[in-house]
Amino acid sequence: MTDQPTKRPNLPLAGVRVIDFGQIYQGPYATLLMAKAGADVVKVEPLTGEPMRNRARTSKGAGIPLAMLNSNKRAITLDLKTEQGKQLLKDLVKQADVLLENFTPDVMTKLGVGWEVLHEINPRLIYASGSGYGLSGPDRDAMAMDLTVQAASGIMSVTGMPDGPPMKCGAAVVDFMSGIHLYGAVMTALYERTFTGVGRLVEVSMQEAVFPALASNLGMLHSQDGAVPPRTANRHGGLSVAPYNVYTAKDGHIAINAVKEVHWQGLLSIMGLEDLSDDPRFTSNKARVENMEATDALVEAWSSQHDRADIIALAREHRLPVAPVRDLVEVTNDPHMHERGMLEWIDHPVFGRIVVPTNPLRFHGADKVETVPSPEAGQHNNEVLGEWLGLSADDVAALKDDKVI
Amino acid sequence: MTDQPTKRPNLPLAGVRVIDFGQIYQGPYATLLMAKAGADVVKVEPLTGEPMRNRARTSKGAGIPLAMLNSNKRAITLDLKTEQGKQLLKDLVKQADVLLENFTPDVMTKLGVGWEVLHEINPRLIYASGSGYGLSGPDRDAMAMDLTVQAASGIMSVTGMPDGPPMKCGAAVVDFMSGIHLYGAVMTALYERTFTGVGRLVEVSMQEAVFPALASNLGMLHSQDGAVPPRTANRHGGLSVAPYNVYTAKDGHIAINAVKEVHWQGLLSIMGLEDLSDDPRFTSNKARVENMEATDALVEAWSSQHDRADIIALAREHRLPVAPVRDLVEVTNDPHMHERGMLEWIDHPVFGRIVVPTNPLRFHGADKVETVPSPEAGQHNNEVLGEWLGLSADDVAALKDDKVI
Repeated sequence: MTDQPTKRPNLPLAGVRVIDFGQIYQGPYATLLMAKAGADVVKVEPLTGEPMRNRARTSKGAGIPLAMLNSNKRAITLDLKTEQGKQLLKDLVKQADVLLENFTPDVMTKLGVGWEVLHEINPRLIYASGSGYGLSGPDRDAMAMDLTVQAASGIMSVTGMPDGPPMKCGAAVVDFMSGIHLYGAVMTALYERTFTGVGRLVEVSMQEAVFPALASNLGMLHSQDGAVPPRTANRHGGLSVAPYNVYTAKDGHIAINAVKEVHWQGLLSIMGLEDLSDDPRFTSNKARVENMEATDALVEAWSSQHDRADIIALAREHRLPVAPVRDLVEVTNDPHMHERGMLEWIDHPVFGRIVVPTNPLRFHGADKVETVPSPEAGQHNNEVLGEWLGLSADDVAALKDDKVI
Repeated sequence: MTDQPTKRPNLPLAGVRVIDFGQIYQGPYATLLMAKAGADVVKVEPLTGEPMRNRARTSKGAGIPLAMLNSNKRAITLDLKTEQGKQLLKDLVKQADVLLENFTPDVMTKLGVGWEVLHEINPRLIYASGSGYGLSGPDRDAMAMDLTVQAASGIMSVTGMPDGPPMKCGAAVVDFMSGIHLYGAVMTALYERTFTGVGRLVEVSMQEAVFPALASNLGMLHSQDGAVPPRTANRHGGLSVAPYNVYTAKDGHIAINAVKEVHWQGLLSIMGLEDLSDDPRFTSNKARVENMEATDALVEAWSSQHDRADIIALAREHRLPVAPVRDLVEVTNDPHMHERGMLEWIDHPVFGRIVVPTNPLRFHGADKVETVPSPEAGQHNNEVLGEWLGLSADDVAALKDDKVI
């Protein structure tokens, strides 16, 4: 890196102030990545805390997502139903670059603190809205959560066994996919603002954020002249690559995706079946697709006799696209992600020793951001209201007495 | 919007020039969103085209993803194994803001056009690398595709039936999740550059991009003191919400996630079972979780007697989080996404009448970007090499004769 022209910290979002009304997963993930890139993120919650605070009390592990997604943020409380609460928000907005919320559409507008009001107060503000179906259109007001959008978006229809029911993806891919889209939208508007001096209302719908990921399946739809594609379990969504499946190993499962002929040849070699390399059932991807059952049976007969680690070692040597199916104990202890600094063990004041992610966005050469465990609701009321608004400890105590914060 | 201080087009990324080596899904999705936000994206391919060009020839629908992900880009060809090709790239880099690639680590470095070389040529360049496991760590060189990273990341381990095999998500969530992370990383670096004047190497690993989406499942792991969580089919990943499942309807399936007590009460009301509101088996989420089989059976007995549309209409009226499980015919014809302009029917010169996405990132007040169908490989060789580098038609013809482009 060459010299920095100013004393700006060597972090991409140094100096950016974010008012974070994010709750559950979508919003908090977007603002987590902002905090990890150096922004000053202030999590704003009702006096009872965001919904995850309540959920955290239902089981030992239910608070882990809260801890995962709110590191490196400061937390304040604010009752937006009070006039003083609204005024405090307006004062904070004057100091802010970004406000992000993932309430249902119109919540903020009905409270009198929607985009138009806040844009008037601070034209530089970027206002980011995350919702299930977006701020317009006939489905705008439909209630949305990860599960229901997995249903409505088409993801469930292409997941699971061909003869089984539609199946969700076990990870909350809708919440997180839309959360990172929201991050991208805010960054784009921040960049634009350096030219225009003006912020924008940016918006992401959960449903729309996952649509593009159906690309292979939409190809299958087109191939079939518009007939609904079948679920294909672990086979290729377009049933047009083989071997492409999950196979049994002696101690679990492995996944193989033989994209190129060289992969098939390599696979024959590690299976000790080079004599099949001229077998017309298998000489091209097209042939193997036509003989998919036989192809899969061949691989399975071999893989089921070996441990995952032995298969992976051979595959690495031959540069074949093979991976172990890992469980969450293996994933959270993955030496690779720990060595890269993506995962960290921390001692959380509430949840104890847990694994948290740092930042999947890696900015080479930037300073390391040490993980600060997620705060309690309102933990930084004094600090933030003092720093941002110049309120004294007495001012803050009075607001607390009045149940404004 | 207030006055723009310059005649800059009213698009967030107006004036941003992107060299796009993206292939398959991850890279092209990131640069699609850049193009849709107003950037000048030039897709650079080997003379035989990126891998999707070849795949597009295997079945009628296999090219649909290519069409979906490359709208509004211009395309040139470049043989990076020739000296002239490398020099052309270096000349293009002098004119560019962003270079994005999702080759395996080191491909560009080995060709002599890696980050360090290009950063020297143009210190303002942002170089974005997408890969399976990132640019460092013991798994760096493992081959990666959506399927294999679904296996290695833990997603498969939490998807599917409790008594069935690990299951992939049918949508390519790993490719797309990492693609939009890459977009976010580039935008962050663009913003930072407006202060520092210097670009960065930014990096996203597919494995790391999907880890946070396991939040609920990681909570379950913690609840169980580190024992591997079971697959839960369509039930809550932490088995701590009920009703939370996919239920049979007369004409398909619906998904219900009763997050709050008011949802359960509303559900009893539309099921005509208000008399159960005092039944101790169901009076709290905790009680319903303990009686999950009975709770689910109650809902299923009702839902299976009704059509999806009738259930959804009732749910909307009571503001309940219920959604139909939609198939891809319904999704691609969704009146909501079409009305919002997220989906468009276009007449593609190669693929005919198809549905393509516009942009899940919505910048309110920005100009509309009309969809331009995805180009053929090298379609804009003359235009781009003329505009960016001042080459004449004769220069370009000579490069073509020499098989450099």
